[in-house]
Amino acid sequence: MSKIKIAIIQMKMVSSRIKNLDNAINKIRKAQQKGAQIICLPELFLSNYFCQIEKHSNFKLAEKIPGKTSDILCSLCKELKIILLASLFEKKLAGIYHNTCIVIDQRGKIISKYRKMHIPDDPQYYEKFYFTPGDLGFKSVKTSKINIGTLICWDQWFPEAARLTSILGAEIIFYPTAIGWHPKEKKSYGKSQLESWISIQRSHAIANGIYVAAVNRVGLEKVGSKTLEFWGNSIIFDPSGNILAKAKNSEEVLICNIDLKKIETVRQHWPFFRDRRIDKYKGILKNPKNA
Amino acid sequence: MSKIKIAIIQMKMVSSRIKNLDNAINKIRKAQQKGAQIICLPELFLSNYFCQIEKHSNFKLAEKIPGKTSDILCSLCKELKIILLASLFEKKLAGIYHNTCIVIDQRGKIISKYRKMHIPDDPQYYEKFYFTPGDLGFKSVKTSKINIGTLICWDQWFPEAARLTSILGAEIIFYPTAIGWHPKEKKSYGKSQLESWISIQRSHAIANGIYVAAVNRVGLEKVGSKTLEFWGNSIIFDPSGNILAKAKNSEEVLICNIDLKKIETVRQHWPFFRDRRIDKYKGILKNPKNA
Repeated sequence: MSKIKIAIIQMKMVSSRIKNLDNAINKIRKAQQKGAQIICLPELFLSNYFCQIEKHSNFKLAEKIPGKTSDILCSLCKELKIILLASLFEKKLAGIYHNTCIVIDQRGKIISKYRKMHIPDDPQYYEKFYFTPGDLGFKSVKTSKINIGTLICWDQWFPEAARLTSILGAEIIFYPTAIGWHPKEKKSYGKSQLESWISIQRSHAIANGIYVAAVNRVGLEKVGSKTLEFWGNSIIFDPSGNILAKAKNSEEVLICNIDLKKIETVRQHWPFFRDRRIDKYKGILKNPKNA
Repeated sequence: MSKIKIAIIQMKMVSSRIKNLDNAINKIRKAQQKGAQIICLPELFLSNYFCQIEKHSNFKLAEKIPGKTSDILCSLCKELKIILLASLFEKKLAGIYHNTCIVIDQRGKIISKYRKMHIPDDPQYYEKFYFTPGDLGFKSVKTSKINIGTLICWDQWFPEAARLTSILGAEIIFYPTAIGWHPKEKKSYGKSQLESWISIQRSHAIANGIYVAAVNRVGLEKVGSKTLEFWGNSIIFDPSGNILAKAKNSEEVLICNIDLKKIETVRQHWPFFRDRRIDKYKGILKNPKNA
């Protein structure tokens, strides 16, 4: 069967872990009732975006995988016969923590674990304080429905990440995301930033002839005097880069049909994989020289 | 001086080499009079897009570099004190021909030669018949104004090409181009194809924090019963991916100011080069495995 129904869940997070989990589970159940077979949650959906400040006590939010949250989600997947992508703050061991996305299949098994490879660090996005860069490499996992690639937020700005995930066989890449505006910048740069974010993901769909789904959070989140406005706009692209579905800036579940046959058709018409110059790409493994 | 004026020349080609050359020279002169310091011509500007059919006699169009056309253009650059990018059908030796872009500086010297690395082959774009894939690698050349990267048309669909050119130091990438619609496909796919073309180039500006300029031809070109409608839409992006200038679908010279300082500002705000995982990109040198 080449047709699959996917759902991405654009959520607003609150300070209570249990409320966020309940909200996510309710939305997953509703999406499944509407026929969704593969469902993806936003980045770090269990909490407010704690990386707005560097605070040691936030490490308490990290958990083992498998662990208490993944156990709950595994049971849910088994019950609902769905595939779920969930982004969690993972404790690997004392002092090593990752920003991780797991894929759980319809039997309730964790079939893939991806640890965010590219870690941002920007005012109010202090992720380098919390997360060790991923040590498991890029990931695509074969499921009964489709090959699923997982990347996370900041990874979306790196064409290498999408390419590598596609080379591994991904037919769709999901990007659980937490991106928004600094309120001070929104007026001058907000439109350009949002358009760039959409463009770069669209480019991954085009360059690789794959589906791309980005799943953002929404809402204003304040930590002391600091605020971020998460811009929503979760979006799904087909392998030609056409927009299949796009959310606005409130909570919303996007459900859409994926036709696997489209991938081959697009790649026959835009045969980029045929023409890659892998004999001449070694420079990609280097950084730019001194100016 | 961080401000530079560039021009890109969107042209309609005819069957006469001499008329195309005259047209190009006239437009170069006008652009220079308006202050342009760096000027780029479209792909294979000396002829109709001969790759619409596979015809051995078309190899007669190829010429040596340096050769008669580059000599004329070198004199022009010296006279006008400009930097020029010109795309030529290059004869390397009997049986080896390239789709080549040279950069000529204000002294009239050829300072860079780039041979198109990714060669398309699509109905009416039979380039693999004519062009050997480039053997000189990717190119960025330091000039008195700016570091210039050169890529050509089909290269624009490959994020690796833009990345490698940026790693070499390019601050702007020019893409001499010949892209258009198959008249039969235009109604159903034309809008999507054009938007994808714009998106993919925008993505290179964003991912690399550089200027990008794509220079297309315009016009209907017929060869026997075959027709292509070259779609123009030449475009210049700033390092955030904002559109600085965009042509429509007739002949047009786009002139715009480039501010080199913007590159560093953008790269400080979107520090993608800081976070590349060059330790984990080796897979880029491979093709996808069997499905």
